[in-house]
Formats: sequence, C-alpha cells, structure tokens
Amino acid sequence: MSRPLRAGLVGLGVMGRNHARVLQSLPDVELVAAADPRPEARAASNGIDAVATVRELIDRGIDLCVAATPTITHQDVAFELAEAGVATLIEKPLAPDPKTAQTIVEAFARHGVLGCVGHIERFNPALQDLRRRLALGEIGELYQVVTRRQGPFPARIVDAGVVVDLATHDIDLTAWITGSPYRSVSACTAHRSGRPHEDLVSAVAELENGIVVTHLVNWLSPFKERITTVTGDLGCLVADTITADLTFFQNGSEPAQWERMAAFRGVTEGNMTRYAIPKPEPLLTELSHFAAAVRGEPSTIVTLEEGLATVEIAEALRESAASGETVKVSR
Amino acid sequence: MSRPLRAGLVGLGVMGRNHARVLQSLPDVELVAAADPRPEARAASNGIDAVATVRELIDRGIDLCVAATPTITHQDVAFELAEAGVATLIEKPLAPDPKTAQTIVEAFARHGVLGCVGHIERFNPALQDLRRRLALGEIGELYQVVTRRQGPFPARIVDAGVVVDLATHDIDLTAWITGSPYRSVSACTAHRSGRPHEDLVSAVAELENGIVVTHLVNWLSPFKERITTVTGDLGCLVADTITADLTFFQNGSEPAQWERMAAFRGVTEGNMTRYAIPKPEPLLTELSHFAAAVRGEPSTIVTLEEGLATVEIAEALRESAASGETVKVSR
Amino acid sequence: MSRPLRAGLVGLGVMGRNHARVLQSLPDVELVAAADPRPEARAASNGIDAVATVRELIDRGIDLCVAATPTITHQDVAFELAEAGVATLIEKPLAPDPKTAQTIVEAFARHGVLGCVGHIERFNPALQDLRRRLALGEIGELYQVVTRRQGPFPARIVDAGVVVDLATHDIDLTAWITGSPYRSVSACTAHRSGRPHEDLVSAVAELENGIVVTHLVNWLSPFKERITTVTGDLGCLVADTITADLTFFQNGSEPAQWERMAAFRGVTEGNMTRYAIPKPEPLLTELSHFAAAVRGEPSTIVTLEEGLATVEIAEALRESAASGETVKVSR
Amino acid sequence: MSRPLRAGLVGLGVMGRNHARVLQSLPDVELVAAADPRPEARAASNGIDAVATVRELIDRGIDLCVAATPTITHQDVAFELAEAGVATLIEKPLAPDPKTAQTIVEAFARHGVLGCVGHIERFNPALQDLRRRLALGEIGELYQVVTRRQGPFPARIVDAGVVVDLATHDIDLTAWITGSPYRSVSACTAHRSGRPHEDLVSAVAELENGIVVTHLVNWLSPFKERITTVTGDLGCLVADTITADLTFFQNGSEPAQWERMAAFRGVTEGNMTRYAIPKPEPLLTELSHFAAAVRGEPSTIVTLEEGLATVEIAEALRESAASGETVKVSR
Repeated sequence: MSRPLRAGLVGLGVMGRNHARVLQSLPDVELVAAADPRPEARAASNGIDAVATVRELIDRGIDLCVAATPTITHQDVAFELAEAGVATLIEKPLAPDPKTAQTIVEAFARHGVLGCVGHIERFNPALQDLRRRLALGEIGELYQVVTRRQGPFPARIVDAGVVVDLATHDIDLTAWITGSPYRSVSACTAHRSGRPHEDLVSAVAELENGIVVTHLVNWLSPFKERITTVTGDLGCLVADTITADLTFFQNGSEPAQWERMAAFRGVTEGNMTRYAIPKPEPLLTELSHFAAAVRGEPSTIVTLEEGLATVEIAEALRESAASGETVKVSR
Repeated sequence: MSRPLRAGLVGLGVMGRNHARVLQSLPDVELVAAADPRPEARAASNGIDAVATVRELIDRGIDLCVAATPTITHQDVAFELAEAGVATLIEKPLAPDPKTAQTIVEAFARHGVLGCVGHIERFNPALQDLRRRLALGEIGELYQVVTRRQGPFPARIVDAGVVVDLATHDIDLTAWITGSPYRSVSACTAHRSGRPHEDLVSAVAELENGIVVTHLVNWLSPFKERITTVTGDLGCLVADTITADLTFFQNGSEPAQWERMAAFRGVTEGNMTRYAIPKPEPLLTELSHFAAAVRGEPSTIVTLEEGLATVEIAEALRESAASGETVKVSR
Repeated sequence: MSRPLRAGLVGLGVMGRNHARVLQSLPDVELVAAADPRPEARAASNGIDAVATVRELIDRGIDLCVAATPTITHQDVAFELAEAGVATLIEKPLAPDPKTAQTIVEAFARHGVLGCVGHIERFNPALQDLRRRLALGEIGELYQVVTRRQGPFPARIVDAGVVVDLATHDIDLTAWITGSPYRSVSACTAHRSGRPHEDLVSAVAELENGIVVTHLVNWLSPFKERITTVTGDLGCLVADTITADLTFFQNGSEPAQWERMAAFRGVTEGNMTRYAIPKPEPLLTELSHFAAAVRGEPSTIVTLEEGLATVEIAEALRESAASGETVKVSR
Repeated sequence: MSRPLRAGLVGLGVMGRNHARVLQSLPDVELVAAADPRPEARAASNGIDAVATVRELIDRGIDLCVAATPTITHQDVAFELAEAGVATLIEKPLAPDPKTAQTIVEAFARHGVLGCVGHIERFNPALQDLRRRLALGEIGELYQVVTRRQGPFPARIVDAGVVVDLATHDIDLTAWITGSPYRSVSACTAHRSGRPHEDLVSAVAELENGIVVTHLVNWLSPFKERITTVTGDLGCLVADTITADLTFFQNGSEPAQWERMAAFRGVTEGNMTRYAIPKPEPLLTELSHFAAAVRGEPSTIVTLEEGLATVEIAEALRESAASGETVKVSR
C-alpha cells in the first residue's frame, strides 16, 4: 500500500480555508502545511501548520499543492512549485491574461510536472450530470447555451473585473459541456460602481460547432443566480449550480387543448423533471480527482491548456467590449 | 354627444378574431364589417358582416380600421386605407423590411391620416407598470435590459423568421421602456427546424444611452417564457408578460449572517415584491388608445415611425447574424 | 345515425353561460333554449333562445338539461325535470342539506330518469390523471390526502357557507380519488367577514380505509390555491387544479452528501416530475360524459348518490364545528 | 468587567456538536467540557474536553449547561443539573410526557435555578420576524394558523413518534406567535413504516382566542417542508424556516379585469413581498439569549412552563388520535 500524499496549500483566504477543510477530509492525503505571507492569516489557520513562504512549504516535502492566492500572484507561485516538481492545482482563473497563462503552461510542461486549474463549477453535481446527459444524447443536437451568473458584489476582495473573475466560470463550463471551442464573441461591458474594472458583461458567441452562446454575468443584480440552460432538438436541460439541481424540459408531447392554459404554457407541453442526482460537495470532487491524478489513477482534471483557452476567451470578450466589434477567436 | 366610431377590420385569422371581439366590446365603437379574401374565414366570422376586399370595407364608410393580415400584405392594405383617409392600426411588425415600412410611413404622412402599429406587448400591464416605475426613478439609473422570449414553435402560420415575427416585440419594448434608440447590435441566429427562416436569435446590443441589452428569442425551447428584466443602481424589475406580473428585487439591505443562507442568496438580500397591478386585457388597452387617438383625445399609440425604427433594428440583427460582425445602427 | 340530442339549460348566471358555451360546442347536441326567471339574464343570453320557466323549457321538447341555479332551488328544478323524464345534470352541490338531497335522489329513482351532479373538479385534467395513476399503484398504498382550497371571497353571489359551497369539491374529489367513504370528521369553522355563513373550515378526517385527510378551505386567504396532495409509500402526487398540473415527488433515492444541501432538501431526494397531461377544458369533459350517458354510451358521471354522500359529509363537518366534537359518519 | 461564563454540554450527538460549535463562538462564554457516556462520541469531540458523566462535568465548575441528550434521559440529566444549581437549557421536547415534564419544572423551581427549553424554531429568523409583525398588527386580527412540517424520515436516531419529536415544534411556535394557549385538539395519526411510534399526524385545533389551527406533520413525505402560514383580516404571512424567508400576501387591492388572469389569481390581487430580514443562525440566537438570561440581562427564553404546556398538547394530540375524539385541553 502506498503512503499518504503530502499536500501543501498556498493562501489562507476564504477559498484557501475551504481547500484546507476538504484536503484534511481526503483519505490518504495529509495536509502538511499552508503558506501565507500575512501573519494574521497564519494566526487564524485553525490548527494548520502555517508558514510564510512557498519556499518553506516546499521544504516540508510535499507531493501536491493547491494555489489559492490572488490571480495576479499565480505566475510566481506556479513557477516556484513547478520548478520544485510539485503537482499543483491553481485556483481559477489560471492568470489575468493569456500571455501570463501561457508562461504557466510552459513552466509545467518544461519541468514535466502535473498542473491543473480549479474550475470548480465543472465539479458541481448539476453540471456533472448535465454533461453526462448531453454525452448520452438526451437532448439530441445542441442549439443554444445560455449562462446567467448574476448577483450582488461579493464581500471578498476582487483584484479583477467580472470578465476575468466570474465569466471565466461560464467560458470554461460552456466549452467543457459542449466539447467545442469558441469561434467568435461579441460583448458589451459596463463599469457602474466606481470600481476600476468592469462589473457587468453581456456576450453572445458562436462555438466552432455552431452552437449559439449567451453569457449574462455581473455583480450588479440584487438577486443571485447561477443558471446554465442548454437547448437541443429533444428538449432543454437547466442546471442551477447554487442548489445543484438539474431540470429537464422535454419537448412538447401534449398539444394544448384548453385555451386558457395555452396562453400560459404554449402550444405544446412536455414533461418537466428535476432529477435526483448525487450531490457530493464540488470541492471534494475536484480535489479527489486532483489527488487521483497525482497518484496516476484515472481522473478528470482541468488541464492548464484548458485554463489558458478560457483566459484567451475572456480576453476576447474584453477586446470586443473595448472595440465594439465582434472578435474572431484565432486558434 | 358624438356618434359612435365606425370600425373596420381586415383579416379574420386568430389575431383578427381577437380584434373583432375587443372592438365589439368598446364603448362608442361599432364594428361595421370585416374583410378577408378567404371564403372560409368569412363564413366563420361569428355574426360579423364579412366582405372579401378592403375596398368593400371602405365603401361601408369607416372611421378607423385594424389591419390584422400577414406581414407581407401590410403595404397593400395600408396604402388602400391611407388613401381612403381611414385611421389605421397595423398589426406588428409594421413591415417585413425597413424599405417597405418606410413607404407605409410616407403614405400615411402624405395623406395626413393617423396610422399606428399594434405592438401589443407595450400594453401588457406588467410593461405598462414597469415603464411607469422606471420613469419615477424607482430603480435609479439603468444598467441592463434582458428579454427572454422563448417557447415551442407556434401553431399559427408564420411568414417570417423569429427576428421579424418575435424579436420585434423585444426591440420595440426595449426602446420604449428605456426611451433610448439602439446604437449597435451583435446577433447570432440558427436555422434548426427545416424552416426557410431563422428560428433562434441571440443578440447583445448597446443603446445610445449606454444600457447593455440582451435578447434571447426563439421557437425552439420546450417551455414558454416572456420575461423582461431591467437592472438599475437601486434594484431590478422583472416583468412577465404571460402572467402580467411585475416583480421588484430591491438592492440588498441585509448582509448575510448565517453562512448556510449566504451560499444561496448572496452576500446581501433585499425585499422582493410582486406588485398587485391593474390588469386590463392588453388588446383592450391598445384599441381603447387607438379609438381615443381617432377621436383626438389624449392617448398613447405606437407611431408608424416607432414601428419603422423597430423594423430597422430587426434588419440590423439579421445583418449582424449574416455577416458575423457587429452592426452600428445609423440614424 | 341518431338525431342530435336536444339540450336545455336552467340558469343564465356565470356558470350557466359557461354551460351554454360548452353545450353549443358539443357535437350532436343542440342547445334548444335556456330558462331563467330574471328578464335581464334572458336579455343577455347572447343569442340563445331564453324562456322564463322550466315548464316552457320542457315544452320545447328536450332530452337533457343542465340545472345551473342557486343551490336552494335545486330541489324544485330537479323535481320538475325528473317528472318530465328529462335527464339532468345538477350543478354542485346537489342540495344545501342531506334531507333535500335525498328527496332529489328519490325523485329521479322514482321516475327512472338519469340524474347526475356537476362536480366539475373531478373532470379537471390534473385530478383525472392523478386518479388514473393512483389506480395504477404509482405511489403505492395511500397514507394521506390534503386539499387546500383557499382564496379571496368570490364576486359571485353565494347563498351558502364555505362548507357547502366550496368544501363539497374537496369531499367529492377525496372520496373519488381514494375510492373510500369517510369514517369520521373533526372540523373547526370561522365566521369572519360579517356574512351569515362560515367562511373558513379546517378539518381532519379519517376514511374507511384508514387514510388521513385534511381539508383547508376558506374565502379569507389573499392568494388563491387549489391543491390536492396525495402521499403514499412510493411518493407523493400533487394536483393543482388552477393550472391543471400534476407533479410527482418520488421517494428519495439519493442520500444527501453535501451538508449545505441536506439542510434544504432533507436526508434523501427523489426525482420530481411535472407531467405533461392532456388538458381538455373540464366542463367540456363533464358535459361530454353527460351526453354520452344520455345516449347510453360508456361514460363516467357523478351519480346522485355520490352527490348525496358529499352533502352528508359537508353536514358532518358543520355538525362537528358546531358541537366541537368529532363526528362519526354513519352509513 | 465580569468573568466569562463557564459552560458545559451534555450529549455529543449531532445536535450536541452543533451546540458545542456555537457555544465556542459566543463572546464571554467558555465551553469547559462536554459529557457523553459513549466512548466513541467522546473520542470524536473535536478537541473539546470530554467526560463520561454529568457529575464530572458539574465538578469542573460550570455556570450553565446545555442538555442535548435523548428525550427519555432529560429527567435524570435535568435533576442532576438543577440540584447542582447549574442554569440549564434542555433540548426540545422537554420530556416524553407531561408528568415527567412537570417533575422537571418542579425540580428547577425547588432549587431556584434557571431552566429553559431549546425550542429552536422560535429563534428562526422567519418566525422571529413573523411574530414581531403580528404584534405590530400588520395582518390585523388572526383567523388561522397552518403549519406543514413534512419530509423524509431523518437519518438521526429517533426515540419517539412524530408527535413528540416533531409536532412539538409546531405546538410551541403556534402558541408563541399567537400568544394563545390551545382550547381543543382533534388528531389522526398513522403508523406506516414499521416503526414503533406514529410517523404521521394531522390535527385541527382551536386556540383559546378562537384561532383555527391545522398541523400537518410527518416523516413520510418525499419532499421536505417547514411552512407556517398565518392568515388575518389584512393578509397572510408565510414563514419558511428552511430558507428563513418570510413572505407577506397583502389582501387584494386590485380587482381582476382580464378574465384569463382572474382564473389563476382570484377575484382580487394584492402585493406579495418576501422580506429581507436579518438572518443570524437560530442556534446562535437561542444560546445568546440563554447566556444573557444566565447573566441576568434582558433576554427571551422558552420557559420550562412553556415547555411543559407544549408536551401537554402533544399528549392531547396522541390521546385524540387514540380515542378518535376531540380532546378539550384542561388548564
């Protein structure tokens, strides 16, 4: 039997503490220590051995590490861990821009080290099951993907605009569930709350396979929603990643008869089913897969290349918003 | 006291019969006759005096007329009525293309006759109250408008694609509630059901006043929805024109305390109110205003110029979808 | 081929006009005339031949008749029609009290004439499909029935309390879907709005087969609801007779894993399905069955005996409320 | 400045661990130790000093204690703590039967020690705000209370039937929000899942002040709900203690005009508002009040007498279900 994996963690913010909690719950994984330059963060580490630098963490001898630091620091942290040969999961987004993301991809490639990105939404039970059903052809050929990720401005410190911080969720999950890269994007953004970065983006895009995509992402809505709607020629699947629910609207089988009802439900109606699906905590699924990948076992992780592609589309959204023109995505 | 207005109707299809029912219920309006070239439609006119041609209708002597015929016939019908000096409400959209719409505008102007367009959604109680509240500043400065008009393919015969037939609702209501013309549009369309015209359009647009607009319109969704969401710096108003409900989401006043709840509702929560609003039937409101306008009384109608502007934006959506480029709207 | 059935109608109130509209739409049924003692009701008969008395109606020669008059007049109308040998559907409830109901049952029996009761809720698509599924054993052995019929006080004139006027719906449908008579009832009522009769009743009852039943019926709630919930050992079916929807909550198959979700959904979760069901207008179904019964064709009608049993339970509810004691239903 | 309160805890089950977590978070309260006779429970105490007996806990010197043990053990634990002069919060229900509950009330009275009951639902934000609004007269005179507490059978070990274990929530909250004791109760129960105790109870009751009450409580429903509906002459308030939401349905102000809508919403419609309310964790509120009471500061706790009254009504429900008769509650 193999020894437990020795795990490190960089960053003891809100997300970092979540990683710590889940890493501690993983079988055959030992959370060795966590690094954070902020003394007050280390003081509140809740019993975890806390060090100030990534160097010290590496020196403890770790097999894998989670980098849960602000996006602008990902490059430095990633370089240090890659060079040290530590398999690393980097929180999303991989980097604030494609160029930086590219250097991270290259660093891990150069050192032959496993790297991946923490696109947590992929591991949400609703999207896991949505993708499984799409692959089984349950709604036939796909026409349209719409994501709505709206809500009030978060309490956590955000070092980026809503495109990089939030829409990268939508970009990653859309490419992942459809299995198709983006072909072109048109976006409008708004800067409304006196913050340096945009806080609203609305985009329409076309995927390489012809699917029409819409993203509605902002920090300006009074209500919080996290909805992914996928429509195909047999019906529509709606994933809510807040409640982890997946609902299927079957194409109409019953033509409307009673006039009063037709006005409300349309000319036909089909079954609507909210599926009971297994709902493990997404972070647990994500880190379990990461640990499995480190052990060389079958697993599905978000590759650094996928993380790079997502940052590229985010950049294209911002470019389109700035220029007022549709942007073709070169590949 | 004035004599009742003598009203005519052109077209005895589904919508025409609705007009007939409501015209008959209007005080001081007498539905004189209805014209339809189809014998079977005239036979099913339910007691209404039915003639074959617009000419015969005009010859009965009418003050006003509703033209509820297929869009491609609007020009001919409109010309004949304008020339005869009959005040006319033309069903939406005004025309299949801007050039045709322009000729209709000019015909009514040349003859000095009142013309207007039946953009019925404006008269939906939810949108009437939404616009009133926006004008009062209830949600402050506007950021974003999103309309979702999705559902199964209608049973009625449709002589146009979803852009002209359905998205013209969204274009008209967006310009009307915001009081701003469009500046640029980017659209993707899909042709999925073997019909000659597109059956899905997703668009992002910017209005002259900077509001970011998204339209999701199709005949491919298994569920029917008619939703308009307007977000401003004090909150969000959501109009459902199926149930004629208007719901207000106030910006968050209560910061989240109980962690379990915060994950579901976001970092703050505000009151959510579904308003009790007067709900007269939209068609009754529309035709009452039309009759009032004919009498020279205060009224709000959709002008032919507004109808033309809407057809122009619809054309821009199709042009953007065809070219794959953002289209600036010249005015 | 048989000649069309000659139909009569007594009562031109709101419900009567609905009957008229539907009788006119039935194939092989001819609405001969309608009787109403009120001149203004006859004047507004919308083209239907209107007479003042049941006698005149009978004299026209009718095969069947719908009696849609105030409950207190049912006895007189029913006697006259039974004596004349006219098959009659009497609006619900059959009579204001069991003794009167009994005389009606006997009158039709004595004359060997078909009589039935217009318990329209049975013909609601949601309850039709609910009963079908119960009969198929889809939720196994039944434990509990709960009906909620609450809403604002209706505009129509009501000559009875909420027990007789409204709860008779619940009593009839409960006995019908479960196939079991009532064994005992305990009820509380309230008189809150200055009306002579009670306007709220809450009751708990036990059926002969051990099912526990709750009825919540009033004219005091600001929102309108018409909900029937049936729980069995395989799950729960919920019928909404306003929207004619039937929803199935399957017993839990997925044990909760993610703690955050368990607090909201319980320890297990099963599929939830809103079924697409055929939705003909209930009144059309009811009258089609009545016409079929008159023709001697297969049909399901609500017998006068069933109508009597419902009035008996309504009486038991009032008796329980008055005495403050549980009432055993003698049979 | 006063020293921190020294707190003890009896019982390290699911609820006990929740108490531990919250006690540790209270300012000026120190969780000294927890007692549990089960070695495995002590072993999983998560860093809390764990002892085997209440005696040992008392010997550590504690000012207050939470008793979170099975209901059948409440008497022994309570006696020991009362005798030792330790202010105690006993988990709900106070005791399995009124007689036992009475002895606990007497024990604390005899020793002059503060005792209270952990009726946690009272501290749910939705019910806190509901009661506040009732006291302000926001819905006028009360007519009706309905509670629905249904869901799948819980994973935790339950040493009682649904009346004692679950319906005591409903009894306590109903008396508390209305400020009125019960006058009479009629209940039906069912034993459906092969468990020794009843797993379903439906009851109708009348309060001393004439309010009509219905309780629907079971462990048999596939979906989980925790709903309290209170109707008065100005409207209706609905508390959902799962989501901690409070929604107000105002009495109708807008008469229905559009016929299609009236069928769905009733003859009038009023505003519907989901209030944004402060949502602290209920257990935190409960224990903060308990600690305040121990310090002699203003606080609202559930008295032992209230806990006893609730157990008495639970007993009356079971008695009514067993006898099939309405039970008058003697006071």
